[in-house]
Amino acid sequence: MSKFFTARLAALTPYTPGEQPRDRKYIKLNTNESPFPPSPKAQKAAAEAAGSLQLYPDPTYLALHTAIADYHDLSTDEVLVTNGSDEILNFAFMAFCDENSPAVFPDITYGFYSVFATLNRVPYTEIPLRADFSLDKSAMMAQKGTLFIANPNAPTGLALSAAEIEEIVAANRDRVVVVDEAYVDFGGESVVPLVRKYDNLLVTRTFSKSRSMAGARLGYGVGSPSLIADLNTVKYSTNPYNVNSMSAAAGLGVMADEDYTQQNCATIIKNRESTQMALRDLGFEVTDSRGNFMFVRHPRLAGKAIYSALRARGILVRHFSKAPIADYNRITVGTAEEMAALVAALADIIKE
Amino acid sequence: MSKFFTARLAALTPYTPGEQPRDRKYIKLNTNESPFPPSPKAQKAAAEAAGSLQLYPDPTYLALHTAIADYHDLSTDEVLVTNGSDEILNFAFMAFCDENSPAVFPDITYGFYSVFATLNRVPYTEIPLRADFSLDKSAMMAQKGTLFIANPNAPTGLALSAAEIEEIVAANRDRVVVVDEAYVDFGGESVVPLVRKYDNLLVTRTFSKSRSMAGARLGYGVGSPSLIADLNTVKYSTNPYNVNSMSAAAGLGVMADEDYTQQNCATIIKNRESTQMALRDLGFEVTDSRGNFMFVRHPRLAGKAIYSALRARGILVRHFSKAPIADYNRITVGTAEEMAALVAALADIIKE
Repeated sequence: MSKFFTARLAALTPYTPGEQPRDRKYIKLNTNESPFPPSPKAQKAAAEAAGSLQLYPDPTYLALHTAIADYHDLSTDEVLVTNGSDEILNFAFMAFCDENSPAVFPDITYGFYSVFATLNRVPYTEIPLRADFSLDKSAMMAQKGTLFIANPNAPTGLALSAAEIEEIVAANRDRVVVVDEAYVDFGGESVVPLVRKYDNLLVTRTFSKSRSMAGARLGYGVGSPSLIADLNTVKYSTNPYNVNSMSAAAGLGVMADEDYTQQNCATIIKNRESTQMALRDLGFEVTDSRGNFMFVRHPRLAGKAIYSALRARGILVRHFSKAPIADYNRITVGTAEEMAALVAALADIIKE
Repeated sequence: MSKFFTARLAALTPYTPGEQPRDRKYIKLNTNESPFPPSPKAQKAAAEAAGSLQLYPDPTYLALHTAIADYHDLSTDEVLVTNGSDEILNFAFMAFCDENSPAVFPDITYGFYSVFATLNRVPYTEIPLRADFSLDKSAMMAQKGTLFIANPNAPTGLALSAAEIEEIVAANRDRVVVVDEAYVDFGGESVVPLVRKYDNLLVTRTFSKSRSMAGARLGYGVGSPSLIADLNTVKYSTNPYNVNSMSAAAGLGVMADEDYTQQNCATIIKNRESTQMALRDLGFEVTDSRGNFMFVRHPRLAGKAIYSALRARGILVRHFSKAPIADYNRITVGTAEEMAALVAALADIIKE
């Protein structure tokens, strides 16, 4: 740290992304990436866009906004694309949270929420999940402030129904409810159809998971035109050309290849369910995950021990040391072959 | 604006990027883009990277950091790549400015500095340029706080020598001096070789101009390992994967094609000098620009009138309404053909 670093940020604990080891080749099940390559249409569009990189992107991203709006049956003024969904989440903390409107989110959820809150000097309250990892809705609503709900939640994989989310949004019209649907395409229920009904609802999405584009850094938010206008003010005060031309083009490409996305999601769901069944047969406990990952523990083995034993066998998963979930590992759902290797490794590990 | 927008940001005036009109085809000389396509090596590398977009980028960007470090004869811990140089500038405001260390920059300079200051609740002082647009170094140094110097400056194009910058950096070891070298490749003197000597110097660069990659959104900062460590803390608290895989690959590609970049810069400089000579012959006044743009006024015609007359003739330039420079237009240096069209249009306009 330099002597010039501002005191406030010097106290910050940054987010830790999943490790990207270089020591050997791993079966990489630690960052919830898709095991499938991006759509050929996305690749082709990106390669074409690379030919005119000398020009700035259209800062209004009209073409991409139109495609996303059409997909959701919305208008372009109800959509804003960002440099990954981390950016739209950060913008939401900037736009809709302050001393008067603190942030409220579960204690076990996407780890970046507390980082964004601290970064933006936003007071926040973490509401403990119940013992079964379900969301304590009344406890959340009892707190003043902007609500952040990952649905499905990470790393637990548990999801609320659209009706349950609507109940929260409807009962809290005086504050913004941010619903982070990064993982919704793997079996969750989206509340995007509700944004026309509730002007206090912001839904965030990503192209990183179901659309196989984590490397492109493309996310977006949908909400009422007034919420999106606020987020646009933040964007134009931060990075007007926040999404590069190639990712914008790739986003258009994959939107035009919806069958490919849906087919990949179906495969992931199938692999998740069959793998979870195999793990249960081995004595593991798994949550009812609606994400492209599983949340898994063994009644006898510590989470960290399983993580290390898998790593030694060339399989990388994600372990969080936070107490209530330290027994668990979050394991990305990969190809059938990868899942077979995972199950074999875990069978081997529990035998020791 | 929604009723949920925080009061502080509701008062923000965002940055206005140069217009991207769709009504007709223009000769686009308004956003300082390169008239040359990106290096074929950059295009090829980006297209290849598009094939594995399902994976997150390496958040340490080791390969690209190594290439940039090698280029400048530095180590990787002295470099940080960002989503355009706007992001490294924003990070610098976040990391090195607060109530105790306000921001100090000229009144006529890159318009985003004041936006970043406001966004980050940083008090700032704008030091008036002298009548000849030169930087008032003593007035800047007389103010407490972090100094931001665009060198060459925009939109004036004027540059300080490396020796003049060093004088400022050396005399202010107790604060950070940020030197924004977005345009340095077109005839400016870089102070990158000084970052080992002064731990209070941060130099920012972009791939948008000389490297024909505005659409890729790739910039970087170089400074002492401790300054870069601070900026990394900000990055990992904002967007760990801030640069997408394709732009990172394209950056590596263009770094491996330095002859192409140098040749393009030489062409731009040649076109700038010959165009300025032609404009002087027509009675225009031009500054001694070291950027890929010219800063031009006519003793008889208002800046806005020239802007509009050019626009009517299909040539787009940038006009700023701020009083001291309202007589001027900033005109990007394009190809010889574009410059011939510009000179012909201006000759026509002043005849009216």
